[in-house]
Amino acid sequence: MSYLSGRHFLQIPGPSNTPLPILAAIAKPTIDHRGPEFAELGLSVLGGIRTIFKTAKPVVIYPTSGTGAWEAALVNTLSPGDKVLMFETGWFSTLWGKMTKALGIEADIIKGDWRSGVDANLIAEKLRADKAHAYKAVAVVHNETSTGVTSNIAAVRRAIDEAGHPALLLVDTISSLGSIDYRHDEWGVDVTVGGSQKGLMLPPGLSFNAISDKALAASKTSKLPKCFLGWDDMLASNVNGFFPYTPSTNLLQGLKVALEMLHEEGLDQVFARHDRAAMATRRAVQHWGFDIQCRNEAEYSSSLTAVRLPEGHSADALRREILNRANMSLGNGLGPLADRVFRIGHLGDFNNVSVLGVLSGVEMGLKARGIPHRAGGVDVAMEALAGNSPPVAHAAE
Amino acid sequence: MSYLSGRHFLQIPGPSNTPLPILAAIAKPTIDHRGPEFAELGLSVLGGIRTIFKTAKPVVIYPTSGTGAWEAALVNTLSPGDKVLMFETGWFSTLWGKMTKALGIEADIIKGDWRSGVDANLIAEKLRADKAHAYKAVAVVHNETSTGVTSNIAAVRRAIDEAGHPALLLVDTISSLGSIDYRHDEWGVDVTVGGSQKGLMLPPGLSFNAISDKALAASKTSKLPKCFLGWDDMLASNVNGFFPYTPSTNLLQGLKVALEMLHEEGLDQVFARHDRAAMATRRAVQHWGFDIQCRNEAEYSSSLTAVRLPEGHSADALRREILNRANMSLGNGLGPLADRVFRIGHLGDFNNVSVLGVLSGVEMGLKARGIPHRAGGVDVAMEALAGNSPPVAHAAE
Amino acid sequence: MSYLSGRHFLQIPGPSNTPLPILAAIAKPTIDHRGPEFAELGLSVLGGIRTIFKTAKPVVIYPTSGTGAWEAALVNTLSPGDKVLMFETGWFSTLWGKMTKALGIEADIIKGDWRSGVDANLIAEKLRADKAHAYKAVAVVHNETSTGVTSNIAAVRRAIDEAGHPALLLVDTISSLGSIDYRHDEWGVDVTVGGSQKGLMLPPGLSFNAISDKALAASKTSKLPKCFLGWDDMLASNVNGFFPYTPSTNLLQGLKVALEMLHEEGLDQVFARHDRAAMATRRAVQHWGFDIQCRNEAEYSSSLTAVRLPEGHSADALRREILNRANMSLGNGLGPLADRVFRIGHLGDFNNVSVLGVLSGVEMGLKARGIPHRAGGVDVAMEALAGNSPPVAHAAE
Amino acid sequence: MSYLSGRHFLQIPGPSNTPLPILAAIAKPTIDHRGPEFAELGLSVLGGIRTIFKTAKPVVIYPTSGTGAWEAALVNTLSPGDKVLMFETGWFSTLWGKMTKALGIEADIIKGDWRSGVDANLIAEKLRADKAHAYKAVAVVHNETSTGVTSNIAAVRRAIDEAGHPALLLVDTISSLGSIDYRHDEWGVDVTVGGSQKGLMLPPGLSFNAISDKALAASKTSKLPKCFLGWDDMLASNVNGFFPYTPSTNLLQGLKVALEMLHEEGLDQVFARHDRAAMATRRAVQHWGFDIQCRNEAEYSSSLTAVRLPEGHSADALRREILNRANMSLGNGLGPLADRVFRIGHLGDFNNVSVLGVLSGVEMGLKARGIPHRAGGVDVAMEALAGNSPPVAHAAE
Repeated sequence: MSYLSGRHFLQIPGPSNTPLPILAAIAKPTIDHRGPEFAELGLSVLGGIRTIFKTAKPVVIYPTSGTGAWEAALVNTLSPGDKVLMFETGWFSTLWGKMTKALGIEADIIKGDWRSGVDANLIAEKLRADKAHAYKAVAVVHNETSTGVTSNIAAVRRAIDEAGHPALLLVDTISSLGSIDYRHDEWGVDVTVGGSQKGLMLPPGLSFNAISDKALAASKTSKLPKCFLGWDDMLASNVNGFFPYTPSTNLLQGLKVALEMLHEEGLDQVFARHDRAAMATRRAVQHWGFDIQCRNEAEYSSSLTAVRLPEGHSADALRREILNRANMSLGNGLGPLADRVFRIGHLGDFNNVSVLGVLSGVEMGLKARGIPHRAGGVDVAMEALAGNSPPVAHAAE
Repeated sequence: MSYLSGRHFLQIPGPSNTPLPILAAIAKPTIDHRGPEFAELGLSVLGGIRTIFKTAKPVVIYPTSGTGAWEAALVNTLSPGDKVLMFETGWFSTLWGKMTKALGIEADIIKGDWRSGVDANLIAEKLRADKAHAYKAVAVVHNETSTGVTSNIAAVRRAIDEAGHPALLLVDTISSLGSIDYRHDEWGVDVTVGGSQKGLMLPPGLSFNAISDKALAASKTSKLPKCFLGWDDMLASNVNGFFPYTPSTNLLQGLKVALEMLHEEGLDQVFARHDRAAMATRRAVQHWGFDIQCRNEAEYSSSLTAVRLPEGHSADALRREILNRANMSLGNGLGPLADRVFRIGHLGDFNNVSVLGVLSGVEMGLKARGIPHRAGGVDVAMEALAGNSPPVAHAAE
Repeated sequence: MSYLSGRHFLQIPGPSNTPLPILAAIAKPTIDHRGPEFAELGLSVLGGIRTIFKTAKPVVIYPTSGTGAWEAALVNTLSPGDKVLMFETGWFSTLWGKMTKALGIEADIIKGDWRSGVDANLIAEKLRADKAHAYKAVAVVHNETSTGVTSNIAAVRRAIDEAGHPALLLVDTISSLGSIDYRHDEWGVDVTVGGSQKGLMLPPGLSFNAISDKALAASKTSKLPKCFLGWDDMLASNVNGFFPYTPSTNLLQGLKVALEMLHEEGLDQVFARHDRAAMATRRAVQHWGFDIQCRNEAEYSSSLTAVRLPEGHSADALRREILNRANMSLGNGLGPLADRVFRIGHLGDFNNVSVLGVLSGVEMGLKARGIPHRAGGVDVAMEALAGNSPPVAHAAE
Repeated sequence: MSYLSGRHFLQIPGPSNTPLPILAAIAKPTIDHRGPEFAELGLSVLGGIRTIFKTAKPVVIYPTSGTGAWEAALVNTLSPGDKVLMFETGWFSTLWGKMTKALGIEADIIKGDWRSGVDANLIAEKLRADKAHAYKAVAVVHNETSTGVTSNIAAVRRAIDEAGHPALLLVDTISSLGSIDYRHDEWGVDVTVGGSQKGLMLPPGLSFNAISDKALAASKTSKLPKCFLGWDDMLASNVNGFFPYTPSTNLLQGLKVALEMLHEEGLDQVFARHDRAAMATRRAVQHWGFDIQCRNEAEYSSSLTAVRLPEGHSADALRREILNRANMSLGNGLGPLADRVFRIGHLGDFNNVSVLGVLSGVEMGLKARGIPHRAGGVDVAMEALAGNSPPVAHAAE
């Protein structure tokens, strides 16, 4: 393993750059997960995480990466042969669809163009047509990490309601939670899936299910086999701050600090900071003359921007150049977007200087690879950021 | 959260005390899990972990705590309605049995006394009687963490072989791996389940499945629904050092250091160190006049000792006394052993001085609670350890 | 560099074992030593350190190890050719005497036996005889680190006062500060010298001068050349929390946490904890049948115990045995005590279990080297500690 | 203490941003400074540091910040009343002059304009006129941290030689060591003064004296009082890797890693990286339309750039704006330059992206304060860096 001069800029759209106080908390000695000190920690994070989902209902914390929470949302609410309505926004919605099928559930996936969010009208149409209520759930991705498109979840909720359909609403917020406004209770989501390694600024290894009363009721009759990811034992143990099996203690220590930091900055200000960085990034990209993968302005993601390179230029070669030259990692194009787009993460812990550094690194890479572009992208980003209010103090470490 | 003077002694039978170089590795910044630096890390740990299981076959590393790997062993090899032969050695074998049933598998659990290991003769008997080969697997716990009893896995293998039975052999080594000699290949185990937070000296959050060819073949026809824990995608991605979804990067960084340390000390010397600590602990316990939960000398565990207190004395009150007075955590009695036994962990990263400190803390607690015992337990432990060879240097950090 | 299984026990009489929260604070990024965040840090530690010296007067913090503060006490108060009365309590008082002479000051050193503290009567006698007030200062060591003897500073103060002598009183508290009760103001000390790496639980690198009004006045006429260690610029800058040159920022970050921990536990309880550990250690040593280097009970040190081995046994060979076998460092005999005594540090961050672990390590070493002793030393120590109150919570990290 | 979103950019001209592997090494537990593990550490750093000074002669490592090493260079070589020839390049040369006088040495300081380096002709002139060899030393600053001017030390050496003068040559390299090419032996320097917190990438707390044979000989007859900073005991102890008093153990642990990193990257490449960053910074500054404090191109510093703001604009207000808005610290103007200049540090651990981020932060600040400038400074810097070779791997951590 080698060390490159200067800090690595981890600008994939998650895992994001973990702040040092969180890394320090993770590096504290493991404590007894059945002792009184742990109970205090457990209650603190189980309570605190609800504010991030904007829910008054329980949130389960799994000692798994996000994929575990995806599966948990399905196996706790559904039964073999159930039918789920999904929407293809990109790579991750597709993967979630594959998982659904692998688990023995029928997934009806509305085709998408990978440049737009969920079309609530199409959802509504499908549900209205489903007089028999065959669909047990609608499962969508809030922020599609492969394309940088954020879907309107409130609209999906309205579509379900207006269709008078009883389907559960399952939402993946892995790359939006803690970065983009999200409201589990207000939007009537039944299960929200989240992960630790993006807006929450932790390393990967924790994942979440926020659970509505309706979802909890569904879990009582769900027939899919489950144990490790089962909600029942988890919720029972959580009452006292404990877990039914060994939790990921050290990451929970980090989560406590992450929640303190987010609360101290204030979620609204965190979201505003992400919005500004995203806006500055898009202005640079547009100035350079490239297309943004997300087609509709209203759906631009505030946590990442996927950039389309002109035909004949390899996005992966550009990423390699930037990694070697600037010690910065960018996200690759996934599936049909492979080598065609690269993704810039602007989520978690960052400030104006780091955003501009990142854009400088990209522009340098463009120059070095000889990819035609209009110089000055960083300037327009700077202009966009120069009017900003200063960053806000987080909680003391 | 408060800080007590002096180091906390985490002497539960896992999670164990993580060495500082491993904590430091975990606290290094997260790296891009799709980049070249990660590939190097991935190949290193995927290769290195095999030596700990003593296998030349693949070992899958899950971003979950140990319970995930328990479930993985079952869902990858079995189908709904399959029958599994299990043996009740204590709390954890019982839990694994419950999980098996929860997953829709029939578990035939041979009753045990919670003071003895797996009786290979009873296994053989059951298998010989099973002419129809209804049992698809035999699933046992190598080292029962609730009782401090280590079962003879080679004997179980022989029992299966002598019965000429095709059942798979699944073994839980969560509290023995890296502490007590274990041989996946030589003993013909089909799936070995392990965790990070015991002999591997890491915090909880990683778990393992070591997989025989026979188990891999079984996975091709297994019908239990699975996705997150499925072997197929995992093994395919692992070939190049990658994972099919976001792995627990920072814990993998720690695993790399843990493997270096174990390899440098040498597994035989690691095992000998555990054997000595266990022997010294038992001598102290016996000198105090208490029973050891494990009935048979040949089955004494080298990673923990469960101690039975005389009637009328609360093990939990003793543990609380020791926690408050000596800043040391001991394991509680589980299930029927609640408040009757306490468990002393001597596994992972420790040396002679820490073992004696731990026994001193226990003896002080006995005095303070007025629990009748013969003084001098630490002396006999010291005597037992005084003839030892010095500790051996681990890998450079 | 190699890693030995289990934690190293650093039981030299300083540097002591630094608690992890302090190490974590030291590892935080360096901040701008001229910025507002530093000012806050500076004011916090410059204020907090006064409570440890029990003074309302300024305490200077040097970015040097303790020897710098020894020199500072002299060069700020004295002039070439001045005469200082000193007392030979052991190796460190002797070294301070040598330094005094090297700086061009006349040192009149009252001979001692290296087993007793300062004899205030002899000081009084010398001062009464000094009608011309040739002595400009009396300089003594509060806790002699080479012998484990604590001198009565209040008695020295009274001796000076009763002699009606104007000499300044300079006191070295390097191995007592934060471990043994000390009162700069109440005892009328003029300059107290301290260091970071003992009772303050920090690594070495910071040192202190607590300064009385009288000492400050003396500094105005002192003629010894000085700049780096001069009080004037330091005190002027300190008013706003700054330093006249680059301070040791990261150690100051650690000092802040150390002060919080000491204040939270409460100095009286910190001292009581040291007293108990010292008492238990002495009982073990006496049970083994060895002499304690300190002759008088009233002068036993609470931060370390120097143990005399019987003739014909090498203390250094014992220390090496213990280092190799038990991964524990003990202090060596210094000067005439070389190879004759070994020193056990019990200062800074420790608890009952660690104290007993240390004594166990020593007793194991005695057995292994075949040094005749009565077994059971750890038992009597345990007995001595078993009646203790539990450890007290430090400040939240 | 509060935490601001994103990493703080510490862009004062030292202390510089310490890389995480060095912080981790500093946070390792303190070891026994008289034990075998320390001897290995001591020999390693005492040997390794010579390569940084490019000397085969001894380098003393003090547990003090840089000011201690300034004083050490003087008190070890000179006697009261000696005369030293100095050159006023800025704030730090002036401070060193003041120290010289405070120590009772006569300092003859050649006046400078704070925008140019040492004029070797003026030195030569003075020395040729000094037939009596009254000057015992010439003392100059290699890289003046207050102005960003690097002096030609080889030229000073030639000046002394051509004058046939026996004066010692003392050089301060605190802000150039490890950042800008420097050759103690080849340039015939007698004492080189260095510090840990700039090019060596450590926190403050260590300082250095590289010592020629001639300087060592001078120390034998030097009459200034000294003890703590005396070379004799230090050099004697260093032979075996030890120190005559408690060293700053944890910073030495960090120094070992810092040396490994510098050696792995290769000093020539480290210097080239600094040269490029400095060049890019100057191009941005000049594009904005500001004057660089350093007048002569040949004397531009590669470790920092001091920028003159147009009349009527406050540099301190700009720095505050940038601190609040961009979480970045810049250096202030010192002495007569107060509020007139600000200083950008580009030294130690950095890469292209961080350099561009820093310049972006400055340009944003200029916009926000309404200070007239030509936009596009970051663009020209990017252009300047785009042709660079990639960063080079440091030693494995």
